[in-house]
Amino acid sequence: MIPRFKLSPSGPEVSALAYGLWRLADDPAGTSTARVREKIETCLEVGVTTMDHADIYGLYTCEGLFGRMLREAPQLRDRMEIVTKCGINVPCAHRPGVHARNYDTTGPAIERCVDRSLRELNTDRIDVLLIHRPDWLTSAEETARGLQRVVQAGKVRSVGVSNYTTHQFALLAHFLGRVPVTNQVEVSLLRMDAIYDGTLDQCQAAGVHPMAWSPLGGGRLLSGHDEASARTRTALARVSADLGVSAEQVALAWVTMLPSRPQVVIGTNQPSRIRDAAGGARLVLSREQWYALWEAAQGRNIP
Amino acid sequence: MIPRFKLSPSGPEVSALAYGLWRLADDPAGTSTARVREKIETCLEVGVTTMDHADIYGLYTCEGLFGRMLREAPQLRDRMEIVTKCGINVPCAHRPGVHARNYDTTGPAIERCVDRSLRELNTDRIDVLLIHRPDWLTSAEETARGLQRVVQAGKVRSVGVSNYTTHQFALLAHFLGRVPVTNQVEVSLLRMDAIYDGTLDQCQAAGVHPMAWSPLGGGRLLSGHDEASARTRTALARVSADLGVSAEQVALAWVTMLPSRPQVVIGTNQPSRIRDAAGGARLVLSREQWYALWEAAQGRNIP
Amino acid sequence: MIPRFKLSPSGPEVSALAYGLWRLADDPAGTSTARVREKIETCLEVGVTTMDHADIYGLYTCEGLFGRMLREAPQLRDRMEIVTKCGINVPCAHRPGVHARNYDTTGPAIERCVDRSLRELNTDRIDVLLIHRPDWLTSAEETARGLQRVVQAGKVRSVGVSNYTTHQFALLAHFLGRVPVTNQVEVSLLRMDAIYDGTLDQCQAAGVHPMAWSPLGGGRLLSGHDEASARTRTALARVSADLGVSAEQVALAWVTMLPSRPQVVIGTNQPSRIRDAAGGARLVLSREQWYALWEAAQGRNIP
Repeated sequence: MIPRFKLSPSGPEVSALAYGLWRLADDPAGTSTARVREKIETCLEVGVTTMDHADIYGLYTCEGLFGRMLREAPQLRDRMEIVTKCGINVPCAHRPGVHARNYDTTGPAIERCVDRSLRELNTDRIDVLLIHRPDWLTSAEETARGLQRVVQAGKVRSVGVSNYTTHQFALLAHFLGRVPVTNQVEVSLLRMDAIYDGTLDQCQAAGVHPMAWSPLGGGRLLSGHDEASARTRTALARVSADLGVSAEQVALAWVTMLPSRPQVVIGTNQPSRIRDAAGGARLVLSREQWYALWEAAQGRNIP
Repeated sequence: MIPRFKLSPSGPEVSALAYGLWRLADDPAGTSTARVREKIETCLEVGVTTMDHADIYGLYTCEGLFGRMLREAPQLRDRMEIVTKCGINVPCAHRPGVHARNYDTTGPAIERCVDRSLRELNTDRIDVLLIHRPDWLTSAEETARGLQRVVQAGKVRSVGVSNYTTHQFALLAHFLGRVPVTNQVEVSLLRMDAIYDGTLDQCQAAGVHPMAWSPLGGGRLLSGHDEASARTRTALARVSADLGVSAEQVALAWVTMLPSRPQVVIGTNQPSRIRDAAGGARLVLSREQWYALWEAAQGRNIP
Repeated sequence: MIPRFKLSPSGPEVSALAYGLWRLADDPAGTSTARVREKIETCLEVGVTTMDHADIYGLYTCEGLFGRMLREAPQLRDRMEIVTKCGINVPCAHRPGVHARNYDTTGPAIERCVDRSLRELNTDRIDVLLIHRPDWLTSAEETARGLQRVVQAGKVRSVGVSNYTTHQFALLAHFLGRVPVTNQVEVSLLRMDAIYDGTLDQCQAAGVHPMAWSPLGGGRLLSGHDEASARTRTALARVSADLGVSAEQVALAWVTMLPSRPQVVIGTNQPSRIRDAAGGARLVLSREQWYALWEAAQGRNIP
């Protein structure tokens, strides 16, 4: 089974892999309740219990597709942790009052989003609510108060952030009076910024597991035509052959092995790939393999 | 009237707009005492009470022009807060001992600058003294001791910095034993670095209002020929038309609305533009307008 | 004689210049014990008492060349401080188990490296052990525990880091329960990053002297053909003529004068250049000279 850990000292227990729902509405096999349920039951069966949502996924439709399934199979709710995100407004039929893209992480906006997410997801609580993007127009104090209110109301169990810089993370922690339970950021062989810029160091210091989105570079790692992707793919193939595992498993292990122990978000619509990813969740690369992959991705020797 | 606030918990009360004197010597209408007084009285009349000087403005001449006016109208002194800056040496007739550009923020240099500024400005105290630029050759401890001396001597009421990184700000605060009352940095639709690099976050955490210089991008925003300026101007015109205010008011509001609530420094020599800026000091853009301006300036959607 | 200071409040007393052994194996005059001893005795004679090693210098051979000399002249040991570094694995005859480049700063790796360095150097203690490079695959807590073990075992007197970001430095300090005694980073007229990015500010706040490697830009400063080197060389020549000292002395003084007071690592194999560098160890440039060199190196006026 997949390893489990507390997301942070004050956060929920989660699985080392999270299932990302952002492509739920784009499944070529459709969005029927049966199809959604097939994927979620596959996750639960292999031990992927963390469901990573955002109100905006599928232009505000994915939470609803998931909730429709939960209404049919409410017994699944207690077997999972639901993460969702709020704060991005994009004009569309589901956001009638919105006429231009913006971020809104004021207290009232957070409360409105949480109420809608609860309804859409057909659940009575969100395990982890994340601020989706830093909102440059709202004071961290205001956002912190909004987050505290939805926690005090019992609607949200714990709160975190996504795509925050170290400064933004520290500032929100200051006003929250506690450390956010995670910072969900992009990390992969093709996107290493968080390794160098302090984001993962900050998590390590606080005992917080970051969440890693796009651990396969949004697919580029396995099928991109750029030089970095091609180089990395060749190196992945070598390790993959040496260990007798899939290239995707190697790429995910490269991220999960980082010392901050990121919870990696996989986003596939194929149950077989969920199983494959889960099968590699305990994979440990040798130090030489890990650094060889770094060198392939960067196109240079380690300094 | 223009909103007022304390620059920091230990700083003076100031107006949300500051008047920058850096072009005082370049006024096409001249530098007569009458002309200087006309502009300053316009400021005071509309509620712009913070005068933002630096010893080096006008190659060390602007403080003197201002002081000549104050000698004639000493009753104005108590109606304003005087900010000035020290630390930049440029060879010229007013710096006879200086043969090459350098920064000097040692204790003796600070004391010399303060004494000269008091004389030039014809006043008995500086409300806020800022270190103009980080001086890479002087220890923060030395600078802190110099700043403490001019405060203890009663010549300076409070001290801050300008153009400091977050690391430099924290280091000086460490040796000062208190947080600088502001960090005056460049912020505008055309210069957003301070929004992302932690500078404004640090101010927000400390309850310090940053000061924003060049809020119109040094004029580029209203008349620049580059693509970013042109795109932003088009967006400003739209908001300006929608709200029935000037484009300049919109551009200033974009900065004042930032959650760290910058005190914005306007630098015009035209009394009519002082009045116009003041007239927009309470302007609040909608969240959608604010983010639309961000997108126009950046030439891309918010992420 | 060369100034001396404590490397940090809890670190050893060292000389303001350190002698870098990284080219010891490349000396055109050979690597005989007599030749090595000639250089080291020159250092000690002029007051350069800090010997800066790394296990990997000369592809794991330099420590051994030095140790062979120490075996012949053991009385020299107590007249010097030995710094060495660990953590880089490169495949070669001296690292039989290593098949691909990697960093390893786990506890066992640190202990193994220290034991080997003690043997190679023919000494019973290392005065300062540095982690050579940030190892992205090892938790700071694990590295801290390894460092504590070699200190507790009496093999290492104090520990520091090299090439660490401010975040990595703070994270290791957090788990060590104390500040590393130094951060050895590249600083020179041609490499000023550490001046701006907080690295030297962090040292200044902690009372830690950074160590500066490649203070002559790896030789580029005195013989490089790029524009920045050429411009800087012209400016160095001017100051050098004005002060009647060598250009190299001026370039080293430019670094030692930084307010964090870096311990500068010189790496020459020529005894005459050791003497020359030492002769300039108390050189103080004027503020105007220092900034003029900055401007020459950057190719622009100070802002």
